[in-house]
Amino acid sequence: MKAIINQTDNVVSDMLNGFYFEHQHRLTYDQDHQIISEALKTNQVALISGGGSGHEPAHFGYVADGMLTTSVSGRLFTPPSVEQILKAIQMSDVGDGVLLIVKNFASDVEMFQKAKEQAVTQGHSVETVIVDDDVSIEDQTHYKKRKRGVAGTIFVYKLLGAYARNGASLDTLKKVGDHITEQLHTLGVALSPAHLPVENQSTFTLDESEVYYGVGIHGEKGYRKEPFESSEQLAVELINKLKSIYMWKPGERFACLINGLGSTPLMEQYIFSHDVKRLMEIEGLKIDFFKVGTHMSSYNMAGISLSLLKLIEADWANYLQEPTNAPNW
Amino acid sequence: MKAIINQTDNVVSDMLNGFYFEHQHRLTYDQDHQIISEALKTNQVALISGGGSGHEPAHFGYVADGMLTTSVSGRLFTPPSVEQILKAIQMSDVGDGVLLIVKNFASDVEMFQKAKEQAVTQGHSVETVIVDDDVSIEDQTHYKKRKRGVAGTIFVYKLLGAYARNGASLDTLKKVGDHITEQLHTLGVALSPAHLPVENQSTFTLDESEVYYGVGIHGEKGYRKEPFESSEQLAVELINKLKSIYMWKPGERFACLINGLGSTPLMEQYIFSHDVKRLMEIEGLKIDFFKVGTHMSSYNMAGISLSLLKLIEADWANYLQEPTNAPNW
Repeated sequence: MKAIINQTDNVVSDMLNGFYFEHQHRLTYDQDHQIISEALKTNQVALISGGGSGHEPAHFGYVADGMLTTSVSGRLFTPPSVEQILKAIQMSDVGDGVLLIVKNFASDVEMFQKAKEQAVTQGHSVETVIVDDDVSIEDQTHYKKRKRGVAGTIFVYKLLGAYARNGASLDTLKKVGDHITEQLHTLGVALSPAHLPVENQSTFTLDESEVYYGVGIHGEKGYRKEPFESSEQLAVELINKLKSIYMWKPGERFACLINGLGSTPLMEQYIFSHDVKRLMEIEGLKIDFFKVGTHMSSYNMAGISLSLLKLIEADWANYLQEPTNAPNW
Repeated sequence: MKAIINQTDNVVSDMLNGFYFEHQHRLTYDQDHQIISEALKTNQVALISGGGSGHEPAHFGYVADGMLTTSVSGRLFTPPSVEQILKAIQMSDVGDGVLLIVKNFASDVEMFQKAKEQAVTQGHSVETVIVDDDVSIEDQTHYKKRKRGVAGTIFVYKLLGAYARNGASLDTLKKVGDHITEQLHTLGVALSPAHLPVENQSTFTLDESEVYYGVGIHGEKGYRKEPFESSEQLAVELINKLKSIYMWKPGERFACLINGLGSTPLMEQYIFSHDVKRLMEIEGLKIDFFKVGTHMSSYNMAGISLSLLKLIEADWANYLQEPTNAPNW
């Protein structure tokens, strides 16, 4: 499979150079550490996130007023190093502390945790919110929440970014962040695995006629394959699984993120969105916020994910609607 | 190839229902005529565009303050009917006239022209700007500008939208629009043809190892196939062909749009962008505006296009930078 790249070793730095050129009027770029950062703001906690590359526009596409302060990029599907993350903390902390937003993959959590420990010994105040929105269920009787961090992370950026802009302290952001992630669940379905332009780490294959429910964003396996029939079929499966997690009641309020996993045409994302909307209305749920697009991709995987956030706090819908200049929100 | 759809006949209405649900707080939707429209503004010329579906986020993703007033959607790769376009004119004209922005494909131009004629007999003031930015060159000695309307159309939306918001008359918009399209050229390259979820109208095939320069956005053939090597190879070809059109001189100013043609990962779009930037700097050109993303797709085609606008008017860079709430700008 062809990929529009040059040297394989340089895909991340080439990409970041291209992105930075587009946004140089408002962002800074530390090329040595693959760090993209907003102009620092005093009296505001800095929000840092990052992870492996190959999930674009996550994470640098959300570095903006009202979302992330700083992103730090690792190699393809590989977390950034402790040194990179430590540097991001050092350059982002203006004295009000730093919140790390980390997707729940073992290697990501390990790198961010080590960097946090070193930063704390250097006098930085650092807290971590771990996003574990992915719910991959084996069957109805044995729930097995795999708890990976996937597309719902974008809602965490937006909400905590709004709280931070409104002056929330580091302690408050940590508490609110944990509160949000408890109400945030995502489930995805693949129509094809990703084909990376470097050694492919996909752990699954899929027949031309099949879909795979519950896949992760780095090629992790899902919980069930079945023949593909329709958009509605996928929406029914994802809504039913999410229903079994939330045990929702009519009248409950949700925010909804439909996320293309990479190569899914926007037309198909909106067709699926229409099915999700109809099914949620049949359930009697209120959808106060609805967003569609390719936000957290798995490189060029064909597929889609559905993230729901139960809006148990009145502020959350407003905070999701607040303006931001993030190019990919 | 699987596609996340339900009934084939309903792909456009299902999509528009999904899009409208996301944007119902700010847009209206005429389901019978597949028309998406902004709240109408008095003392402002209405800008209408549209065309076949399958080019998402074009065109509805640009209906917003400072861009389009109204979009009208045809079936996949098929222009809207005269009736649809006429309806869009009737509902968008608040008395200051209507400008139609039409991509230069024979069938699109025919439908919009007929609708314009009928609207004029009904008393509407209507002008048309035809965008013909695509330059597909057979060889260096025999230029053959195929003059299709492709991704550069997005720049026309943004610039004319800014002029309209600033109070330009219909006559002015027509003149400025023609002036812009003279300075606007695009060239694309495909890594794969599109695979539509309905009867595939692609007119070309491509080997796994090949790229095809100069393709259109409906499966139209390009001007040359060659084995794919690198992102830089593609950038060199496109820049050299555009140079042969513009005959540019060092110091000249350009706006630049890098457009993913559908399934091209954002990482690859930014890597290509970095190559384009380097080559333009080697040419001594000034890049005053730079934008990257999937704006005018050919469904799920893998590939990329480069649009340049020579900034011969001082206002144009500012107008490109003016804020808009268009979700896909």
